[in-house]
Amino acid sequence: MPFVSIRITREGNTAEQKAQVIREVTETLERVLHKPPHLTHIVIEEIDTDNWGYAGQTTTVVRQLPLEA
Amino acid sequence: MPFVSIRITREGNTAEQKAQVIREVTETLERVLHKPPHLTHIVIEEIDTDNWGYAGQTTTVVRQLPLEA
Amino acid sequence: MPFVSIRITREGNTAEQKAQVIREVTETLERVLHKPPHLTHIVIEEIDTDNWGYAGQTTTVVRQLPLEA
Amino acid sequence: MPFVSIRITREGNTAEQKAQVIREVTETLERVLHKPPHLTHIVIEEIDTDNWGYAGQTTTVVRQLPLEA
Amino acid sequence: MPFVSIRITREGNTAEQKAQVIREVTETLERVLHKPPHLTHIVIEEIDTDNWGYAGQTTTVVRQLPLEA
Amino acid sequence: MPFVSIRITREGNTAEQKAQVIREVTETLERVLHKPPHLTHIVIEEIDTDNWGYAGQTTTVVRQLPLEA
Repeated sequence: MPFVSIRITREGNTAEQKAQVIREVTETLERVLHKPPHLTHIVIEEIDTDNWGYAGQTTTVVRQLPLEA
Repeated sequence: MPFVSIRITREGNTAEQKAQVIREVTETLERVLHKPPHLTHIVIEEIDTDNWGYAGQTTTVVRQLPLEA
Repeated sequence: MPFVSIRITREGNTAEQKAQVIREVTETLERVLHKPPHLTHIVIEEIDTDNWGYAGQTTTVVRQLPLEA
Repeated sequence: MPFVSIRITREGNTAEQKAQVIREVTETLERVLHKPPHLTHIVIEEIDTDNWGYAGQTTTVVRQLPLEA
Repeated sequence: MPFVSIRITREGNTAEQKAQVIREVTETLERVLHKPPHLTHIVIEEIDTDNWGYAGQTTTVVRQLPLEA
Repeated sequence: MPFVSIRITREGNTAEQKAQVIREVTETLERVLHKPPHLTHIVIEEIDTDNWGYAGQTTTVVRQLPLEA
C-alpha cells in the first residue's frame, strides 16, 4: 500500500514526463516490493523556485549561479 | 498535538465541504484520542489530476476510463 | 483518491483508538467528499515527545508544565 | 541530509521573507546538527486559508474572529 | 532537486530491496526529468500495519481477510 | 500557523540538539514571518540510514565512502 510523494521544482515539467515518472515508479514498487498497482498512489508536488531552498539559497537564486544543476 | 495532512485531487471541492471535513476530523481526534482542538491543525492539499498517479496512470487518464471512481 | 497523514505524539494510543480514527476519517471523506473507501489510505505517524516541538519547546517539557494539554 | 517542509498559510509572505527563513534554518541545522548546507533542502508550502483548519475552523473564518493570531 | 517520500507498510522489506528502489527511482528522475542524482534525496518511511488504514480498516485487519493484497 | 517537518538521518542526535533546533526554528518563524509560537508545531522525523537514499545509494553506503558528508 505505497504512497509516494515526489517534490520537484515547478520548471516546465510536462504532463507526459509526469505520467512517465508515475508509470515507472509504480512498476518499480511492483517488481521490487511486490506492491499491487491498484494500491499504489503517487503524487507529484511542484514547488515554485522561490519556495525551494538549497544550500541556504532559494532555487531562483541558485539557477542564476554559473554551475549548479 | 495532531497535525493532519489530507491530500485529495483538485476537482471542485467547495469551501463548505472542506470546512466540514476540518470540523469532523477535529471532532474525531478530540473524542477518540482526547486531542484539544486548539492544538489540532489540518491541511487540505489539493493536487491536479495530472499530478496524481493511481495504478500507474494519472488521474486525468483514470477519469476517462469507464469504471474507476 | 485521498491520502491522509495524521501525526500525533506517541503517548499510549491503543490499536483500538487508531482503528476508530481510521474508520471515522474514511467515513467522513466518503460522506462529505464522495471518496470511495477503497481509494482512501490513512497513515498514523506517532512521534516521540522529544521530537515534537510546540511553542518552542519539546512536548516532553510541555508535559511537565502545569496547564498545557 | 536534512529535508525540511515548512507549511504556512498563503498570506502575503514575500520572496525576501522566504529567502530569510531558508537561510536561517539551513544555518541552524549546520551549527546545531553539523549538517552540510549542500545536503540541506527546504521547501515552503503555502496553503490557502480555506484549506488550513485550526481548532475545527478554517483559517479564513479564524481570521475574522476578534483575537486569534 | 527532488525529494521523494515513499511510505510503505513495515512488513519485512529487506535492505537490498530498499536500496534497489532508491537506485531505480533516482535513475527514473534523472532520465525522465533530468534531475542530477546528487540533488535527489529519497526517504522510505515504513509504517506499522496497525497504523495504515485502507478502506476504513487497519492493514493488520486487511491482512487477515481472504483476498486483499 | 506553521507546521514544520524536519527529516534527518537517525545518527545520534541528542535530545538537547533537537530541543535547540525546535527553539531556533520557532524563533525564526516568529521574527521573520510573525508567526506566534503557540501556533507553531515542529516535528523531527529521524530516518534510518538504510532508508535514506542520496545520489542513488543508501546513506549506510554513502557513510562508508571516503568523502561525502
